[in-house]
Amino acid sequence: MDPYPKPLKDLISQLKRLPGIGEKTATRLALFILADKDDLARNLAASLVSVKDTIRLCSSCFNLSDMPRCSICQDPNRDQTMLCVVEEPSDVLALESSHAYRGLYHVLHGLISPINGIGPEDIRLFELMDRIVRTETAEIIVATNPSVEGEGTFHYITKIIEERRLPVRVSRIASGIPMGAELKYMDQVTLASALRYRRSIKDR
Amino acid sequence: MDPYPKPLKDLISQLKRLPGIGEKTATRLALFILADKDDLARNLAASLVSVKDTIRLCSSCFNLSDMPRCSICQDPNRDQTMLCVVEEPSDVLALESSHAYRGLYHVLHGLISPINGIGPEDIRLFELMDRIVRTETAEIIVATNPSVEGEGTFHYITKIIEERRLPVRVSRIASGIPMGAELKYMDQVTLASALRYRRSIKDR
Repeated sequence: MDPYPKPLKDLISQLKRLPGIGEKTATRLALFILADKDDLARNLAASLVSVKDTIRLCSSCFNLSDMPRCSICQDPNRDQTMLCVVEEPSDVLALESSHAYRGLYHVLHGLISPINGIGPEDIRLFELMDRIVRTETAEIIVATNPSVEGEGTFHYITKIIEERRLPVRVSRIASGIPMGAELKYMDQVTLASALRYRRSIKDR
Repeated sequence: MDPYPKPLKDLISQLKRLPGIGEKTATRLALFILADKDDLARNLAASLVSVKDTIRLCSSCFNLSDMPRCSICQDPNRDQTMLCVVEEPSDVLALESSHAYRGLYHVLHGLISPINGIGPEDIRLFELMDRIVRTETAEIIVATNPSVEGEGTFHYITKIIEERRLPVRVSRIASGIPMGAELKYMDQVTLASALRYRRSIKDR
């Protein structure tokens, strides 16, 4: 005997499809939504449909946008000669929140990963090369994660740019010890990388 | 410069209204929903609207139901002479999952709490008394939480039943040490309660 009616069970099973939400959390959320007096359910439902209907990828940088070109690409105040290459849209948000970058972005929507069968043609790499050729890009910063796939994608981009002799500087986002962290708690690979890519004083 | 388009920001702010979901989790869920290829957004939206449109309270026990009377109240195999009084619908689910109770329920939708301005008239107590009078109820088990409000509500129910001389046995769900717990880690109030309500061997 199941004490919950079918529409409620349906909502619980839909909520369970979200990442990090199990049976108990889904049940708690569903009962909260049901008890809510402020039209949360209808507003949330409308937002869900609206997101799917309106959000597309920017035709230049492939960031998420509800216009043909995203607000960053349309901003004349941003440095049009710099491209920051990232794996996914949430990386753009993270970098924007640092307020340390004023150029444009290029979202790859994935990284080269032979083990998962993802090759260069499966991500937005062709579009990146095309964009470098077509526009006034002078420098690209590869800001993929410092993982096997992130490093591999960085090396692939470097190789293609060298092969085609594209007139563009390529740099890699620094990896090392995060601000505020303690040396004694850092893992060996991070420490090795921080030592290898040490700054000499003249770089300051 | 906000890198996310408005419909996505709207979805994030709606998700943030759910309990236990902050900015980071809401963003992660919204991006997951956006990237999903299986119509999760539309199914979830449909479930949300359906829950709000169809779920009502059972006219007998005030449990959640999509019919005028819930499936438990309609089940002829359940003991119609027993009522288990609980605070909220999720308590019904918890008790049902124990498979240890075969009677009916009565959901109060709250507990008497003078400090929060909730009196006996604000919860389904009148309906409980009315139901005891109208039906063949022989025993009620008060299964409210062992909190100040839960105990207070239990004492209020006992008092009313005594005052009106209703022909019904009243019992309280046992409180004590949970199965599998260790004595040394239990709090003082639970230990005091477990000693006070100790079972003598003849009760077995």
